[in-house]
Amino acid sequence: MIPRYTRPEMGHIWSDDYQFDLWLKIEVAACEAWAESGAINESEMAAIRRATFSREEYDKQFDATKHDIVSFTRAVTANMGPEGRWIHHGLTSNDVKDTALSMQMRAATALIERDVAALLDALRTRAIEHKQTMCIGRSHGMHAEPMTFGMKLALWYCEMQRHIDRLSELKPRIAVGMLSGPVGTFAGLPPQIEESVCRQLGLKPASITNQVIQRDRHAEFVLTLSLIAATLEKIATEIRNLQRTEVAEVQEPFGRPGFVSKGSSSMPHKRNPELSERICGLARVIRGNSVAALENVALWHERDISHSSAERVILADSAIATDYILDLTARVISGMTVDAARMKHNMESGGGIVFAPRVMLELVEAGVDRNTAYDAVQACAMEALESGDSLREVLAMNDLISQHITQAKLDEVFDYGYFIQHVDHIFERAGLGD
Amino acid sequence: MIPRYTRPEMGHIWSDDYQFDLWLKIEVAACEAWAESGAINESEMAAIRRATFSREEYDKQFDATKHDIVSFTRAVTANMGPEGRWIHHGLTSNDVKDTALSMQMRAATALIERDVAALLDALRTRAIEHKQTMCIGRSHGMHAEPMTFGMKLALWYCEMQRHIDRLSELKPRIAVGMLSGPVGTFAGLPPQIEESVCRQLGLKPASITNQVIQRDRHAEFVLTLSLIAATLEKIATEIRNLQRTEVAEVQEPFGRPGFVSKGSSSMPHKRNPELSERICGLARVIRGNSVAALENVALWHERDISHSSAERVILADSAIATDYILDLTARVISGMTVDAARMKHNMESGGGIVFAPRVMLELVEAGVDRNTAYDAVQACAMEALESGDSLREVLAMNDLISQHITQAKLDEVFDYGYFIQHVDHIFERAGLGD
Amino acid sequence: MIPRYTRPEMGHIWSDDYQFDLWLKIEVAACEAWAESGAINESEMAAIRRATFSREEYDKQFDATKHDIVSFTRAVTANMGPEGRWIHHGLTSNDVKDTALSMQMRAATALIERDVAALLDALRTRAIEHKQTMCIGRSHGMHAEPMTFGMKLALWYCEMQRHIDRLSELKPRIAVGMLSGPVGTFAGLPPQIEESVCRQLGLKPASITNQVIQRDRHAEFVLTLSLIAATLEKIATEIRNLQRTEVAEVQEPFGRPGFVSKGSSSMPHKRNPELSERICGLARVIRGNSVAALENVALWHERDISHSSAERVILADSAIATDYILDLTARVISGMTVDAARMKHNMESGGGIVFAPRVMLELVEAGVDRNTAYDAVQACAMEALESGDSLREVLAMNDLISQHITQAKLDEVFDYGYFIQHVDHIFERAGLGD
Amino acid sequence: MIPRYTRPEMGHIWSDDYQFDLWLKIEVAACEAWAESGAINESEMAAIRRATFSREEYDKQFDATKHDIVSFTRAVTANMGPEGRWIHHGLTSNDVKDTALSMQMRAATALIERDVAALLDALRTRAIEHKQTMCIGRSHGMHAEPMTFGMKLALWYCEMQRHIDRLSELKPRIAVGMLSGPVGTFAGLPPQIEESVCRQLGLKPASITNQVIQRDRHAEFVLTLSLIAATLEKIATEIRNLQRTEVAEVQEPFGRPGFVSKGSSSMPHKRNPELSERICGLARVIRGNSVAALENVALWHERDISHSSAERVILADSAIATDYILDLTARVISGMTVDAARMKHNMESGGGIVFAPRVMLELVEAGVDRNTAYDAVQACAMEALESGDSLREVLAMNDLISQHITQAKLDEVFDYGYFIQHVDHIFERAGLGD
Repeated sequence: MIPRYTRPEMGHIWSDDYQFDLWLKIEVAACEAWAESGAINESEMAAIRRATFSREEYDKQFDATKHDIVSFTRAVTANMGPEGRWIHHGLTSNDVKDTALSMQMRAATALIERDVAALLDALRTRAIEHKQTMCIGRSHGMHAEPMTFGMKLALWYCEMQRHIDRLSELKPRIAVGMLSGPVGTFAGLPPQIEESVCRQLGLKPASITNQVIQRDRHAEFVLTLSLIAATLEKIATEIRNLQRTEVAEVQEPFGRPGFVSKGSSSMPHKRNPELSERICGLARVIRGNSVAALENVALWHERDISHSSAERVILADSAIATDYILDLTARVISGMTVDAARMKHNMESGGGIVFAPRVMLELVEAGVDRNTAYDAVQACAMEALESGDSLREVLAMNDLISQHITQAKLDEVFDYGYFIQHVDHIFERAGLGD
Repeated sequence: MIPRYTRPEMGHIWSDDYQFDLWLKIEVAACEAWAESGAINESEMAAIRRATFSREEYDKQFDATKHDIVSFTRAVTANMGPEGRWIHHGLTSNDVKDTALSMQMRAATALIERDVAALLDALRTRAIEHKQTMCIGRSHGMHAEPMTFGMKLALWYCEMQRHIDRLSELKPRIAVGMLSGPVGTFAGLPPQIEESVCRQLGLKPASITNQVIQRDRHAEFVLTLSLIAATLEKIATEIRNLQRTEVAEVQEPFGRPGFVSKGSSSMPHKRNPELSERICGLARVIRGNSVAALENVALWHERDISHSSAERVILADSAIATDYILDLTARVISGMTVDAARMKHNMESGGGIVFAPRVMLELVEAGVDRNTAYDAVQACAMEALESGDSLREVLAMNDLISQHITQAKLDEVFDYGYFIQHVDHIFERAGLGD
Repeated sequence: MIPRYTRPEMGHIWSDDYQFDLWLKIEVAACEAWAESGAINESEMAAIRRATFSREEYDKQFDATKHDIVSFTRAVTANMGPEGRWIHHGLTSNDVKDTALSMQMRAATALIERDVAALLDALRTRAIEHKQTMCIGRSHGMHAEPMTFGMKLALWYCEMQRHIDRLSELKPRIAVGMLSGPVGTFAGLPPQIEESVCRQLGLKPASITNQVIQRDRHAEFVLTLSLIAATLEKIATEIRNLQRTEVAEVQEPFGRPGFVSKGSSSMPHKRNPELSERICGLARVIRGNSVAALENVALWHERDISHSSAERVILADSAIATDYILDLTARVISGMTVDAARMKHNMESGGGIVFAPRVMLELVEAGVDRNTAYDAVQACAMEALESGDSLREVLAMNDLISQHITQAKLDEVFDYGYFIQHVDHIFERAGLGD
Repeated sequence: MIPRYTRPEMGHIWSDDYQFDLWLKIEVAACEAWAESGAINESEMAAIRRATFSREEYDKQFDATKHDIVSFTRAVTANMGPEGRWIHHGLTSNDVKDTALSMQMRAATALIERDVAALLDALRTRAIEHKQTMCIGRSHGMHAEPMTFGMKLALWYCEMQRHIDRLSELKPRIAVGMLSGPVGTFAGLPPQIEESVCRQLGLKPASITNQVIQRDRHAEFVLTLSLIAATLEKIATEIRNLQRTEVAEVQEPFGRPGFVSKGSSSMPHKRNPELSERICGLARVIRGNSVAALENVALWHERDISHSSAERVILADSAIATDYILDLTARVISGMTVDAARMKHNMESGGGIVFAPRVMLELVEAGVDRNTAYDAVQACAMEALESGDSLREVLAMNDLISQHITQAKLDEVFDYGYFIQHVDHIFERAGLGD
């Protein structure tokens, strides 16, 4: 992922340095396991624990062999005595690489969980703040019925909670280690080595492996990130739609430290929802990676290495971009300006058209056939829309309506409070109660 | 999905008939809830319970309105008395449609779980049968080290177990109902209606909704199917690779009732792994659908209906195709011919080259530096490969080897049993122990 | 594709009947070619020309063999005399199937071209109609500068013209035939047979084949449809955005014959851009299929049949859905209501803020440093936005502005005609001149 | 894209430096155009031509504004006199950025074309070298009929030629410039400026624009790369399949300068087709990007900026990865070892089973009904396969065969030359004739 969209902590997890550290940690842990089994004596083990990795030596070896683990072990053992022969003993490259990759995914998932938690906090705060802030609900982009702005935030809050659940279900499936030799038989190293190493590293041994930890696990990691990104895309799309000039209910942070202060190089009057647009764009990249992740599952026989080049790109990119847009979304949510007056203005701009469904319900409850009620109210609503008169006025002059609903009752019906009578209940159910 | 790849039971779940049945069930359940709340009296309710749906009337109404739920309610109420006005009372279309869709996904998931269980049975049976059937393990398509054919099956068995876990985690997230009115405020129908209906239908109310149940749930359904399909693609790819003429270790069922008996219209000698190829092709279709499923998450405001046309295609297609290839895979696994003699022949065809890693380990254990050991054994292996001599012979003439490993020890090393010493342990860990 | 989204003509191209007709046509054409070469005599050929296909016999044979071409040839020859032995002579299944598939893609492409032409007509008519209809241009959903509604249509017109170009470049690459035997060697049938058959069917022989016509061609077909669908998604997204309640500049056809007349089952006041939303949803399905189409390219050796099950779904679905949404888009464009007064109202609602860039240009042309000019105008614009005053008023009170631009000049600047001075030129360049 | 898969020349095209150079070039060209129109005088223009870009100043400005073009123009004009105000005059950011992006895509396409040409050379050379090298053709991974290895290469050669055609059709669609102001009206800068700048830069003005050059063009760029990558995946998959131990007909370059010399860290005997596997993996990444590219087409109104973050990743990544795997494929093709003896051995290993189709044709030509002939030959073939006897021997003992084909004729039939009689013709048609 390009630096522009890389936050340092997540970037570090996918760096060469971090990976080489993990490799060394695993190699030493394997030696510890061999030492436990008696193969390595204590003085050799003491020396092994002091082993270090030289990047310079690695680069030299890699130029010669083009094989990363061979280069790595040579770079570790270059300055070791005869105990160096135990480094990588009985292991195959992927015992080290796949176990390290699990640890990278586990670390990345922990960051993602932290990011989601931060976004949940932001959503919770703003949801409670705007629990009663009335706004128009829209379906198909058209005014439907009133609701509150806090309900939007509460809905996102619950969706992010589901992602917390998904991440916690994912974690045990990716936090697995493997040291099972070339094709998973443990021929050159007994299962005890794997068990010991996994115990040392806080992993569970993968139930059964061939040369690799199976890629359904890695695909699930990428798919879960894609799903999170899709939710962020939804949130960002909403902000973009609410910020548009004609709606103007919400505005992204702008002109404050850390945020953009120029909307356009040619149009000095512009304030754009650029952060939300950026979130949408990166969600697409993450989504595209999910295709490659799924294709990586069907390796040939006990493994082919086609997944490797793809994973070098997509695992890091998806994790880094998801981390980036999670943080960005949290900052947008926390920092956005909410214009409650404008929300009220928009809600009322329809001339009470939004009470049409309630009038229909009243007619039905008064015994009118549903179809008749629907058609009558639709006709009034269309007349109101076209004439510009308020729905209340148009209804007053309709015979069917007058026959079944008194004017006093109609006045009662045209009460915005009706729409938000259950908000407390909704928030409680969403885990956002007092 | 085309009939060719549609099994009747799963096809039925996605049929119009099944859907209209669900809609009626939900409408009646909603009336029951209104009756519980006192809005509908018992005699009306008795009549409502007898409501039926007329497809003919529906088609007529749909021609006129192009609106499915409006047409549906009119088709249900056409022959009802005044109690008909309670049908759909307070609901918005999607209260019915999305709740029904949840029930379709729940039913589909139940079938998928049954399919996975059947495949697990097949895998278990064949895994145990071939627990000790030795074959060569391959990485990069090249001979690596011996293993057993049962291990391949056991590995797939464990992967399918993970899918069982994923399905069971998915289920509570998709088995949710919603009756919350146009934008989720419960304005026209109190939350008690939703609670009652969900209780009647065995669903959980969705934590919070707008006009729809949020599409991260539906996307997760499709993604989970894609992931299952990717595993089936892996299994099928392996069968295809093992059946190829030069390998010939496994053969798909052929020429038996229910299976193809002609390999080619022009080549009478062909027996092809066509079923496995078909599985691979359909896995691609399911994978493509996962992209659309993710794009469906970001609906505008309280919903737009862009997801609907996509879902009419992808939900049914992914469920039907996954059901189809799960069944096909189970039949291939159960019916495939395994040629143990050929496996042994292939394994031994390398002239013992597969013992190279073990020889290297012996050298290291005898105190030789790892790099020296690697290079020596690699040279011998390459010589064996090029000369056609067995590795055992070449090693016998190598000074370094002879110096550190006695001929007797070398004889011991060249023992295929070495590779499968841990198979019992592996099977036990995989849940396939005795 | 489900019937709901299938237009009859395109549906027919992908039907079994159409395919069997093509197969028979190809088989007979091959016999004609053998007759030309002298292998079949005239009386046999006369009988062959009368050959017919029995679907009933086919189904019987298919139950027995599960092989489609074997069943087909038996269904054709069942009632033939000894001349029946020439049917499929020297051919392999795919000689027939792939050549037929090329013809299906060619026929589908012809329909798509006709659809695009119809959409171009609709776009041209409405573009010219609204060439001078002023509206606000928006970037990031925010008011940018005025333009005309016709320019939007002209832009889509030019984009659809590019699709015409792409389709015409695609056609010769998909309209290729193959009769080259099992692996493309022409061993059992000389190249003359292929040349003759292709001549008879109006195809070009594929340059070189193995058992199949290469799948880059089919993938390009699907990708081209995906790209067309992406443009339709853009058009539909624009209509959805322009129809939203707050914007209300455009309205999809509604309540007229052939169009929906109910917006919502619960909200009688709704008129929704459902057709455009449907277009967006189906564009996603087509896009997903493009992934599978690309995966189908890498077949093994001289072919594997994994592409076949995928193609049965995606080729038909993508062609049918693209045909459907092309037609739908054309109908929406032709039938949409354009509210020019509302466009003017929206454009002017910003209090002249859109003249900000022009004021900046005037300052620069008057010798003011660009950054100074930008900052000054931005400050005025922000003040106008926040105070609700018009930009013209705010500028009048700014010293820097007053110093460099006279009030009279400012009045000139605030002229909407400025923005559309080049519309004639733009239309001419777009091929929409008088 | 990570450095590991980035070749310097293509990497440079997507670097910041290259982009800033283009921006400056465009800004100066725009000033030249203004000078032509008389707005800028000659002495100012002379100064403008000496303008330079300071990265340091840019970074400072970007920290403050977070707006790239604003920062860029300030970084260019920081050390200019009053003539600096003409930099970016009348332009909007995207006039510069999108025109530059077109030039990047054009430059990338030129490199890709060069890469394809190099691969075509490699394919041509090896195709001609192996025009007569017989090998078995395989369908479904199973032996089908003999062919030559050169035919495989010739087929890839023709497919890459189609990519040359596609690239040359793509080029004029991406090599377009735009300087049309904020929403494409040319309000602040007349069309002559765009025409002049495009002429200076060798671009064609985009037919009509809004704030951006339409994204169908960029999507087509990415889709074309995906399609090329799919062909490379096909080639690489074939090499992987031909290198597998049991087939062993082809071997990737290994152990030579620039290529890997260690197959495995644990298995000294391994030589793996890792380069081909790497090609397959990167093709997946490129394919995934094509989804995002298609999603980028449907921007809102006159543009939203969601495409931008996605494009920063996918355009560069797809171009760089395609360049990388094109080169890698060419090197594999040029450097691969082809084992003609092994090909002959494999071809003959089936005991002549591949002559079965020809025997069937002979029976038909001798007047036997096709179905009877098919069944008889199939029975003999299956017997040969199961008994291990050669097909020739089995046929000799079959009555039906003996009745219609003399033993002498049968001997003639079993001639491998039969399969390659048309190779010259095939090569000529493929453009690989003498």
